[in-house]
Amino acid sequence: MNDKAPLSVLGLGAMGTALARAWEAAGHPVTVWNRTPARAEGFSTAAGSAAEAVAASRLVVVCLLDDASVGEALADTDLTGKDLVDLTTGTPDQARERAEWARARGARFLDGGIMAIPPMIGVPESGGYVFYSGSRELFDEHRETLAVPAGTNYVGTDAGYAALHDVALLSAMYGMFAGVSHAFALVRKENIDPEAFAPLLSGWLGAMLPFVQRTAEQLASGDYTTGVVSNLAMQAAGNATMLRTAEEQGVSPELLTPYLDLMARHVADGHGDEDGTGMIDALRK
Amino acid sequence: MNDKAPLSVLGLGAMGTALARAWEAAGHPVTVWNRTPARAEGFSTAAGSAAEAVAASRLVVVCLLDDASVGEALADTDLTGKDLVDLTTGTPDQARERAEWARARGARFLDGGIMAIPPMIGVPESGGYVFYSGSRELFDEHRETLAVPAGTNYVGTDAGYAALHDVALLSAMYGMFAGVSHAFALVRKENIDPEAFAPLLSGWLGAMLPFVQRTAEQLASGDYTTGVVSNLAMQAAGNATMLRTAEEQGVSPELLTPYLDLMARHVADGHGDEDGTGMIDALRK
Ligand SMILES: NC(=O)c1ccc[n+]([C@@H]2O[C@H](COP(=O)([O-])OP(=O)(O)OC[C@H]3O[C@@H](n4cnc5c(N)ncnc54)[C@H](OP(=O)(O)O)[C@@H]3O)[C@@H](O)[C@H]2O)c1
Ligand SMILES: NC(=O)c1ccc[n+]([C@@H]2O[C@H](COP(=O)([O-])OP(=O)(O)OC[C@H]3O[C@@H](n4cnc5c(N)ncnc54)[C@H](OP(=O)(O)O)[C@@H]3O)[C@@H](O)[C@H]2O)c1
Repeated sequence: MNDKAPLSVLGLGAMGTALARAWEAAGHPVTVWNRTPARAEGFSTAAGSAAEAVAASRLVVVCLLDDASVGEALADTDLTGKDLVDLTTGTPDQARERAEWARARGARFLDGGIMAIPPMIGVPESGGYVFYSGSRELFDEHRETLAVPAGTNYVGTDAGYAALHDVALLSAMYGMFAGVSHAFALVRKENIDPEAFAPLLSGWLGAMLPFVQRTAEQLASGDYTTGVVSNLAMQAAGNATMLRTAEEQGVSPELLTPYLDLMARHVADGHGDEDGTGMIDALRK
Repeated sequence: MNDKAPLSVLGLGAMGTALARAWEAAGHPVTVWNRTPARAEGFSTAAGSAAEAVAASRLVVVCLLDDASVGEALADTDLTGKDLVDLTTGTPDQARERAEWARARGARFLDGGIMAIPPMIGVPESGGYVFYSGSRELFDEHRETLAVPAGTNYVGTDAGYAALHDVALLSAMYGMFAGVSHAFALVRKENIDPEAFAPLLSGWLGAMLPFVQRTAEQLASGDYTTGVVSNLAMQAAGNATMLRTAEEQGVSPELLTPYLDLMARHVADGHGDEDGTGMIDALRK
């Protein structure tokens, strides 16, 4: 006898396959479906259609290419009384609209943003996790099951919040990647071993991470001037050195200039005595 | 009797003052000089001119506004036999030219890039440090003295390398700041507590830091295709979601687009099956 909750997984791309395998490995009875049936080979229970897969379990997980494919795949299914968990990447508004759409069809809805890549799924020590938002009742009821692939991080009843957190973290990561790319490009033509340079670079970035918390504290308080140690005017005075170094080293400044330009504009707008926190507000249209 | 080496510090701005005080506190006899004499008050030994300050010690540290001010301040000084340590921020080429200039005047030369702000100077546990490059002999001879304000990190005989490391790390930091600013801007209009969001954000960036080392290994090997887990084509497929989310949240994408554009160009150039490492080469003109 199996006390693990049954579920259906729709979509067996790289991620859907990893998810379905993780649940199977944990002992859950899994019904799978994929548009192209060949990808369902090797799974014990494959449904012949999306409607059959949805009918097979109360808990229905979809992980498809994009939000439009979710609408297509579920078009002819009966979602009444179902718990629909959407692990397809999309925007916050797409998730909110999909939540409305699911509720109108009689289903509870939870959106997920997967902060992991397929090889990390089902590997608890990999550090990956999934943001969830939407129906709290659905989440609480299936929490253990949902935790199997990569752990859970519930961020709110607003169905858009999982996607918002997902995109926000990825955006920040690309900013860091951009900075790191520029840094490596600067030292590239020199007789500098990238493997000796890397620990200096990652050590420095790690040491700067606490500024994220300080920024949050300033945003929460609304006070951007108290306790400033290196104000924007002083920082902006160094911009010319940064750009001139890129020029000397033959590196395009394209990844660096937008932040320096925003900083210069913000100083010109009278915020030279502040930390950079106000630049966050300046980004809002 | 004092066995700590005497030195002269020229420039008593925020940083020069912190440096001079740290050496005094460690027991070094310090002769200070500043263009505006009032800033030298409170120091036991103030020289009446830059020439006097240089004459007072073999080890001469300058920390002025920029490289041009170093040329001006030292114009009428006798540098013969001196060990000149320049802690003024500048570009790699400025440091190289200043090294030539100093050698032509009979001095050994070491350039420094201070990875700290004044409150961290003289506080060993603060984590700050100073990159040094140039004369190895000078560095080895004065290593203990140089370590007093914030520790040392010698990066090569090329006098430009300290500045290059300094600017590279600051550039990377600005990239990270840019990404973090965009992320905070995205969640700003929502009912999301920035202080609850911050640990998610910094935790995620910390978890992504090992990619710096992987990038260095790829740069060292020249192989950008082996072991790729999330290739550029897959990543670029998500760009539209990132930009659409910014649009939905009313956030200017200016800090995000340069990296996404570079990624799209690199995929179009036939590198879709690689990691992002090749984008570093694409930045080089
Ligand atoms: N892979 C990752 O690293 C990763 C990480 C985090 C999040 N995600 C997200 O997870 C989702 C799936 O990613 P993946 O890597 O598994 O993608 P994938 O390998 O490209 O698979 C796409 C899946 O969507 C299906 N599909 C596409 N259009 C469809 C339609 N109109 N109707 C029904 N099915 C359709 C495909 O079916 P066919 O087999 O019939 O084409 C396939 O099963 C995406 O939203 C992605 O952003 C992926
Ligand atoms: N503060 C930081 O957080 C920090 C961090 C890392 C590196 N640094 C670097 O350290 C250096 C000094 O920074 P700081 O914060 O001390 O700057 P600061 O407070 O603005 O002080 C500038 C100093 O330069 C002097 N000066 C300017 N032009 C001069 C000239 N033509 N001749 C002689 N002296 C001149 C000033 O003398 P007067 O008093 O007569 O004007 C003053 O002593 C800069 O290169 C900076 O980039 C600073």
